[in-house]
Formats: sequence, structure tokens, C-alpha cells
Amino acid sequence: MIDGKILIKGATVLRAEGTVDVTDILIDGDRIAKIGRCDEVEGATVIDGRKKFATPGLVNAHTHASMTLLRSYADDLALMEWLNDHIWPIEAKMRREDIYWGAALAAVEMIKSGTTAFADMYGPCMEEVAKVVDESGMRGVLSRGLIGIFDGDEKLATNVALYKEWNGGADGRVTVMFGPHAVYTCNPDYLKKIASEASKLGAEIHMHMNETLDEINGCLKDYGKRPFEVVNETGLLELGMLAAHCVHLSDDEIEIMVEKKVRVAHNPGSNMKISSGIAPIEKLIDRGLTVGVGTDGASSNNNLDMLEEIRLATLLSKVSTMSPLSINALETLRLGTLNGAKALGLKEVGELREGFKADIVLWDMSGADWQPNYNPISLLAYSASSTSADTVIVDGKILMAGRQLKTLDEEKIISEFNRCFKRLTD
Amino acid sequence: MIDGKILIKGATVLRAEGTVDVTDILIDGDRIAKIGRCDEVEGATVIDGRKKFATPGLVNAHTHASMTLLRSYADDLALMEWLNDHIWPIEAKMRREDIYWGAALAAVEMIKSGTTAFADMYGPCMEEVAKVVDESGMRGVLSRGLIGIFDGDEKLATNVALYKEWNGGADGRVTVMFGPHAVYTCNPDYLKKIASEASKLGAEIHMHMNETLDEINGCLKDYGKRPFEVVNETGLLELGMLAAHCVHLSDDEIEIMVEKKVRVAHNPGSNMKISSGIAPIEKLIDRGLTVGVGTDGASSNNNLDMLEEIRLATLLSKVSTMSPLSINALETLRLGTLNGAKALGLKEVGELREGFKADIVLWDMSGADWQPNYNPISLLAYSASSTSADTVIVDGKILMAGRQLKTLDEEKIISEFNRCFKRLTD
Repeated sequence: MIDGKILIKGATVLRAEGTVDVTDILIDGDRIAKIGRCDEVEGATVIDGRKKFATPGLVNAHTHASMTLLRSYADDLALMEWLNDHIWPIEAKMRREDIYWGAALAAVEMIKSGTTAFADMYGPCMEEVAKVVDESGMRGVLSRGLIGIFDGDEKLATNVALYKEWNGGADGRVTVMFGPHAVYTCNPDYLKKIASEASKLGAEIHMHMNETLDEINGCLKDYGKRPFEVVNETGLLELGMLAAHCVHLSDDEIEIMVEKKVRVAHNPGSNMKISSGIAPIEKLIDRGLTVGVGTDGASSNNNLDMLEEIRLATLLSKVSTMSPLSINALETLRLGTLNGAKALGLKEVGELREGFKADIVLWDMSGADWQPNYNPISLLAYSASSTSADTVIVDGKILMAGRQLKTLDEEKIISEFNRCFKRLTD
Repeated sequence: MIDGKILIKGATVLRAEGTVDVTDILIDGDRIAKIGRCDEVEGATVIDGRKKFATPGLVNAHTHASMTLLRSYADDLALMEWLNDHIWPIEAKMRREDIYWGAALAAVEMIKSGTTAFADMYGPCMEEVAKVVDESGMRGVLSRGLIGIFDGDEKLATNVALYKEWNGGADGRVTVMFGPHAVYTCNPDYLKKIASEASKLGAEIHMHMNETLDEINGCLKDYGKRPFEVVNETGLLELGMLAAHCVHLSDDEIEIMVEKKVRVAHNPGSNMKISSGIAPIEKLIDRGLTVGVGTDGASSNNNLDMLEEIRLATLLSKVSTMSPLSINALETLRLGTLNGAKALGLKEVGELREGFKADIVLWDMSGADWQPNYNPISLLAYSASSTSADTVIVDGKILMAGRQLKTLDEEKIISEFNRCFKRLTD
């Protein structure tokens, strides 16, 4: 999926070093070939970068894309009532096409808000999400959510099949991980089985960890240990783990995370809305851990707006540490770009740097929320609407230009998505 | 400023009762004449309301509009370093035209994000903000920020003059309050003097209260009492107070607030970013106090996006009380509409109700962030971008249609604003 050469002229560029200057970006194939003045390049598609802020694409480190179908379907409820009475009954009715159109709507929403890569975990038919990644041109790190309470082996087999069919697919834009759901839905034997299958394939792990106090207390009751201590005995952490939430952590667990280089997907919006708690990300970052940010599913958050999410991560860190110095504007952007890419295990992604993959967003700086146009890093981190995303490029391919999607049919997707929602709720 | 009749056909309407149905809204002069089917109205301007969610306009209960000029000028600093080394030096250079163009840019930003009314406090030349309110068609509750450390009497005289010239002005869309800045910038004698002048005019008070722990500790050191206890002895609370921030409150202070019917402007974004703390709004609401929400100035927040702000208020309340039941979606919208209007002392504003002022926003529900279009209240509270604001009406006059401003020249304002910023920072 290589579009040849693209020359972005005169953009305000956020360089990997954290500096900003007005210059050109030359893309050759799927890579950034040059950042600097380029007077003429034969055969290149030229994009006018004036009044545009060029940054790496945003990386959503934890979501459940197809749950867009359940956005605003039920809110403001206690967790178990929300799941038992609202979410699970409708999920039980979901078919293959729902997974596809739900993820397609999510892709529309993500691209239009400047997100270029996402880590996804959901139930059956994850190959439909892989198709959406392929067709949309985004990057996706996909895992089959594995709940061991029933049909555990069957589910595990579908994660193996997903890996074999799709890992490295879509020109390398799809990665497959294994998705044990959580310690409260997978017992240690099942977790060991997952570790064994994933290990044979060299796959990594994406798992919900230490999200609520109920989870911690249940784990202590069942096993006399905390979640990371349980998981540490299953072999899963040796494979490389993207751990979502990580809200309630003991010091011993943080030591395990450091030793095993666990990568964290912080979900501030979901953790706040469901009242799970405040994750100690300042502490985790200080210990050298990689912390990316994810929106979680649209049923709990309720959107996939990564700019809103990284802003929330920083505001929450500043107030919970009572330090205005906690996480500055540049670090805020890195939570959503480089750190997210590292959390997902993406190589040469997450920075604008020569030789890196050309995953670039051009933000339109003409709106009132970008005035005065003095410090674009702070403006993007703390002021701009995600609808400022004007042009989105992934792997050197243009996915959106002037807010028009180039790979997806937005109108058709919204229509098919609503048809699915209507059938599910009839 | 009456535009005759306007008929909004087939909109999805949020009624005062909190229910939603598809119907018509007839506006006659500055009022909502009817909510219900209206087949034909002679001479009425017709607006197509299909796929639009009609709600009351958002009310920004505390801001410093002209500080848009200092947006993203300095961030991520300790409060006193931020003020001493960055904000105050540039404020000292501000002229009359800066106040005007700063507020004009704020009006552009507010209207384009669905805000129809705001409470403002700033330094000299507040009559320039009044002019912006007049010209833009918004509602403004304006106060001259009074810092008693030097030239206190002179400043107080300008607040008196502002009241005499502008209270009730712009067809009743301007209200003038008196603006004692805070207990740490106004001693009790000065506060009494302000109370005396405001009382003669029947004016209300807009003041920063109990924002930071430093403020509380300084007040205890200086007076042996907490801020609301000090203010309670000055006569200010008898006049009616809009109190901004109210983060750190003793039980005794909450009793004073209840007794004196203090109205609160909650500023979650600013309180988080500056690390002031978490205001106990659930507790204040439970005690029957009126709690509106404000963005604070763009120099500390860094935008004037009220949808972002009410969402933040609710997320922060849910996580700080550890209850997902704390503040539901409808209550979230009311924080930004009816409660804000009450906090500002606006009569017959803040609800879509026959006989009420026609302050209405039509939100475009066609974007991905509005799908599935099942529960518009939840979608607006928790998912939608504020750029969904499509049409804004205040006092029966159309300020924006199809995202095009009708009363303000957006391009000219952005250009003049940037000229001012350049001069200030040269």
C-alpha cells in the first residue's frame, strides 16, 4: 500500500527532539525520507502544510472498537448492573456483521480525530476488525478476548487462528496478541495454557490488570495474592504484556512490572466514569515503565477521542499528585504518540524522524482554539479540539485530507452501523 | 434586537422536564412561544431541525475572557512562578484594545462551542467586554476584578461606573456584578467598602473563594478564620454571591454557603491543571446549593469549551466519590445550562420551556461521535465534540447558523487578536 512520494510543504513540525519549526516533510513509500527544506521532488503529491501542525499520529493503547454499537446505551450505573442488565444481553445477540460495522464506525471516528493506531480486544470474529484495519489503512494490534469461564479452549483456538491468519497482515499493519481478559475471568491454569500457546507463536499479551478494588479483593480471596503476583506465576509476563488500566497496584506489583517490562495502557476517562480509581501513572513513569493512553470502549467512555484522553491523563495526574509540574504539554503529547507506539510494540512509529514510518497528522491551526498561535505543543495538548485533525497519513498513505476520508465510505458505514444497532435493540 | 419569528422544524428537543422528543420550536421575539407541532407560521424564518439536538445554550459560570491572549503562553509551572514571571508582566502591558479583541476572540470560541452566556471578571476596561457582549449577541455577567493592594478606591469607582453604564444594557443581556478578586488580595475593610457600594446599587458579587490550600492557610494566618468566615463578616454575602472555585471548604463554611445561598462556579479543568484540588460538588449539590460550571481563563485551562468542562466535572465527581451514580448524563447537561443560568442570576434562561428566553443550541448529530443516535442526552454529555454546535440562538436572534457566525467577523477578529498578541510579546 505505497502511494509513492508525498511532500508536505511549510508545515509546523513537531520533531522527535520535542522542538518545533516550520519546514517540509518528504515521504517516500511508507517512510519519512526527510524533514527539512525540499524545493522540488519529481512526481511527489504536494500537500500545503501552511497553518498546519504536523505531529505523529495518535495511538489508542486500549479499546474495544466494536463497542461503538453500545455507545450511550447505558450509563451512570454500578458496574455489575451495567454489565448484567445492559451490556451482556445485547452482546449475546451480536453477529459477525456487527463486529465489522462497529469497528468500521470506530475507524471513522478514530481517523477523524487524529488516531492512526489502536490496540483492540473483543470477542468472536476479531478477523472482522482485522479487515477494517486492512481496508482503513490504520495500524491495529488485535487480540481475541479470552474468558475462561466456558469454552476456554475453543476461544483460545480462535486466537491462535487469528494470529496465523493475520499477524503481520495488511502490509505489516496488523499485529496479533493474545487477550486473556482478566484474572477474575481466567483462572491460573487457563492463563498458563494461553501463555503456552502464545509462546509457541512468539505472540505478546494484552490483558486487563488491576482495574477495580473488587478485582483486587476477589483475587486476594481466591488466590491469597494480588493480580500481578498471580499472573507472574503463569509465564504470561515473559512474553511481553500490554496491561490495561493498572489502577490499584502494590509496591511489590510495581516491582514485578518493572522487572518484566510490562507496558501500561492508562484509561483515565473510563477509570473516572466507572469510578474504578486513579492510576498512579506519575509513579509508574518515574520507575521507567512505558505508559500509553487508551480510551477503552465507547460503551464506557463514551468516545474514542485520544486528544481528550491524553489531556485528561495529564489533568488527573496534576490534581492527584497536587503538582502542576506533573506531566508537561510535550509529555502529554508523547503519552498519546511515542509511548503509545512503544506500549503496542510498534517499531519506528510514534515520532516524526527520518527513517520512521510515515504516520502523520496535520492539525488545522486556523480555529479560535489555536489562537494565539504561539506554542503549538501546548495548544494541541491543552486547547485544541480533535476535530482540528485535517490530514491523516499512515504508512505513507493518505487516509484523510481536508477532513474527507479517502479509504472508508463514511456515509455507508454510518448507515450500516445504525442498521446493525436497530436489529440488536429491536 | 428581536428577529421576529423563527420556526425550528422537526428537531430532537431536550425539554425542561428532561425528556426528549422530535418536535418543533416556535420563537417569537426573544422568547420560546411554543414547543410542539407548528405546521405553518406566517413570516417565520424556518430552520430545518432534522438530525439536530435542541438544547438550552451552555452557560460559562466563570471565566476571564480577554485572557485568551495568554492561552498556552506559559504552562506546567508552580502558581506563583507562572503569575510573577509570565502572566503579570504581560498583563501589565495590556491596553484597551487588548481587552476588546481578547474578549472578541473568546466570544467567537464560545459561540462556536455552544455557549450563549458567560460570567466574566477581569481588570480595567471591562466596558470593552460589555461592547463585545452587545455586538456578539451573547449574554454577559461582567465584573471589574478588584484587587485592594493598591488603587483600590479607583478600581471600585470603575466597577460603579461599569454598573451605571452597562447593567441591563444590550437589551438586558448585560448584568454587572462587583468583582472583589479574593480574600488574599482584598482585606476585610476593602471588602466592606465594596459591599457598601454594591449594596447602594443592588448589585451582586462575583469572587474567587477557597481556591487553593495556600489561600486557606494564608487566611487562617492573617485573620484566624477561613475565607467564607471572613467574607461573611463583610456584608458581601447578603448581596448574593457567585463564588468561583470553592475547592477547600470546612463544614462550617458550607453551612454559611447554605444559609447565604451562595451560588458556586465549579472549575474542574483549572483546578486540576493548576493542582488546586477537587471541589466537593456532590456534597454541595446534596446541600441544595446551586452549582454551575466555568472554564476559568484560557491561560490556565486552556480553552473555553464548556462541553469538555461539564464532562470533566462529572468524571471528576464520579472518581472522587468512587460512585458511578454521582451526577448522571442529564444532571451533567444541567450543570452547564440551568444551574449555570441560576448561578449567574439569569431569569427564565437555561431550559427549553414555553415563555423562557430563546437561548438555544442545535447540535449536529450526524458525526461518528453521535452514533448510534439512541440517547442524545448521554451522547451530548459524554461523547460529542463541542464542534457539533451547528446553530446558536440567543434572545431569539441567530448568532450562528451552519457553523457560520452571523454577528461577528471571525476572520477579522482572529487577525486583530494576533496583532495585539504580537505587540504584547514583542
